[in-house]
Amino acid sequence: MSVSNTRTVRIEWGDCDPAGIIFYPRYFEIFDASTAALFERALGMTKFAMFKALPFAGFPLVRTQAKFIKPTRFGDDVTVETTVTFGRSSFDIDHRLSLKGELCVECSETRVWTVREAATGALKAHPVPDEVLAKFR
Amino acid sequence: MSVSNTRTVRIEWGDCDPAGIIFYPRYFEIFDASTAALFERALGMTKFAMFKALPFAGFPLVRTQAKFIKPTRFGDDVTVETTVTFGRSSFDIDHRLSLKGELCVECSETRVWTVREAATGALKAHPVPDEVLAKFR
Amino acid sequence: MSVSNTRTVRIEWGDCDPAGIIFYPRYFEIFDASTAALFERALGMTKFAMFKALPFAGFPLVRTQAKFIKPTRFGDDVTVETTVTFGRSSFDIDHRLSLKGELCVECSETRVWTVREAATGALKAHPVPDEVLAKFR
Amino acid sequence: MSVSNTRTVRIEWGDCDPAGIIFYPRYFEIFDASTAALFERALGMTKFAMFKALPFAGFPLVRTQAKFIKPTRFGDDVTVETTVTFGRSSFDIDHRLSLKGELCVECSETRVWTVREAATGALKAHPVPDEVLAKFR
Repeated sequence: MSVSNTRTVRIEWGDCDPAGIIFYPRYFEIFDASTAALFERALGMTKFAMFKALPFAGFPLVRTQAKFIKPTRFGDDVTVETTVTFGRSSFDIDHRLSLKGELCVECSETRVWTVREAATGALKAHPVPDEVLAKFR
Repeated sequence: MSVSNTRTVRIEWGDCDPAGIIFYPRYFEIFDASTAALFERALGMTKFAMFKALPFAGFPLVRTQAKFIKPTRFGDDVTVETTVTFGRSSFDIDHRLSLKGELCVECSETRVWTVREAATGALKAHPVPDEVLAKFR
Repeated sequence: MSVSNTRTVRIEWGDCDPAGIIFYPRYFEIFDASTAALFERALGMTKFAMFKALPFAGFPLVRTQAKFIKPTRFGDDVTVETTVTFGRSSFDIDHRLSLKGELCVECSETRVWTVREAATGALKAHPVPDEVLAKFR
Repeated sequence: MSVSNTRTVRIEWGDCDPAGIIFYPRYFEIFDASTAALFERALGMTKFAMFKALPFAGFPLVRTQAKFIKPTRFGDDVTVETTVTFGRSSFDIDHRLSLKGELCVECSETRVWTVREAATGALKAHPVPDEVLAKFR
């Protein structure tokens, strides 16, 4: 099961460094918001609403990997295509960020669905709820 | 002479702190991008294009002032209304950030139009070009 | 009652924008951490520990005001002197950021001591606890 | 040839998200500054000075890869050990971020030494200068 979402993001002046190109940690902010946007689109609710409606305490990363192919800079309107593939309590996300049809960054990440442990309040892995999976079908 | 622009901004998970509300320095990132958006709309070119087309090396702040009236949080789509009032080489910008019609943040800033000094490369104040002022009329 | 703390902060490449100088919202990140450092020094515990040990849910800003006098850039080791003046449930913080003895930024902010409302979980103002005030004397 | 540097970084309130743990893009800001710190230590000059003293226009990333093993949170003083291994015009950097001796994040990245093309001003790969390599020996 794999579903995708596409959105456009403006690279801003404040995202760029003295070389005039994007400071690469900003890409991960963009990718994190792109993951949230994919879930929002599929579930029809914001991440904020997910905390209220679902057994959910966030989906932290366990790994990420990115290839920077072509730099982007302020004023660029980039396209981010985000795709999810579900495991049991983890899932893989792929992001393809492109500018005018040219691929600039490829990123692949693994995240874990978490809930709060009742006793300690700590985050722990939890199977992705069926009601979530159903929405992605 | 005073002109304004309005845009919508999504507050993201990564903009928020452990209290669950926006970490206030993010507002200034939003306001900086809102100032750029106002110029882009009036001039019909991005800030990147302004560097090529105009005697221009940025419009750094000399002061800012903000009142935080109501917190916002991830998932909120806030509206930012940005207004400029021109002086000679400086200009004042006002930002009003609101959520569902309720004012959340008021910000007022003064910026200086700059160019690069030919000899040293240092930023120096420069009158706002007439061709810029004309576009705001 | 007014107490101060001084710390040194390195301005990093990633804090700077395409003009080669610090992107001003980063100053507010520095100031927020400087406020936390002042409390940590006076109370002898981190902000994280304050959440455990005190009636405390953060000290959000109600206003801030800054004057940018001289830009700083990556590689600069700036000094931030932070001073607090307590009211009842609010307090004023002043930050003076300087480089090699020259003042670069002046900032003044007002923050509110908050706790969580038992019923709703919302943040509400609360008098600064006496045990906190005692540590600043 | 492989040389390393170790530094301590405080995780701040503003680095953390509503889950109360660090927002992972902040790790990449820490790693970028850790790479700069390694070069500063070996060369005895800041990155800013490198732009003046060397054929150098930055060392952008071509890829990065990170494993998030254990979350960190505000108030944590983490240790980052950064190691470089040089190729011809590219080099690999490894970061190991740990808290109280426990490994929290492992990151490996490849960067390219760049200079500005005289004609176009574009960044292009350039062999790491011998005077730089000599300092790492």
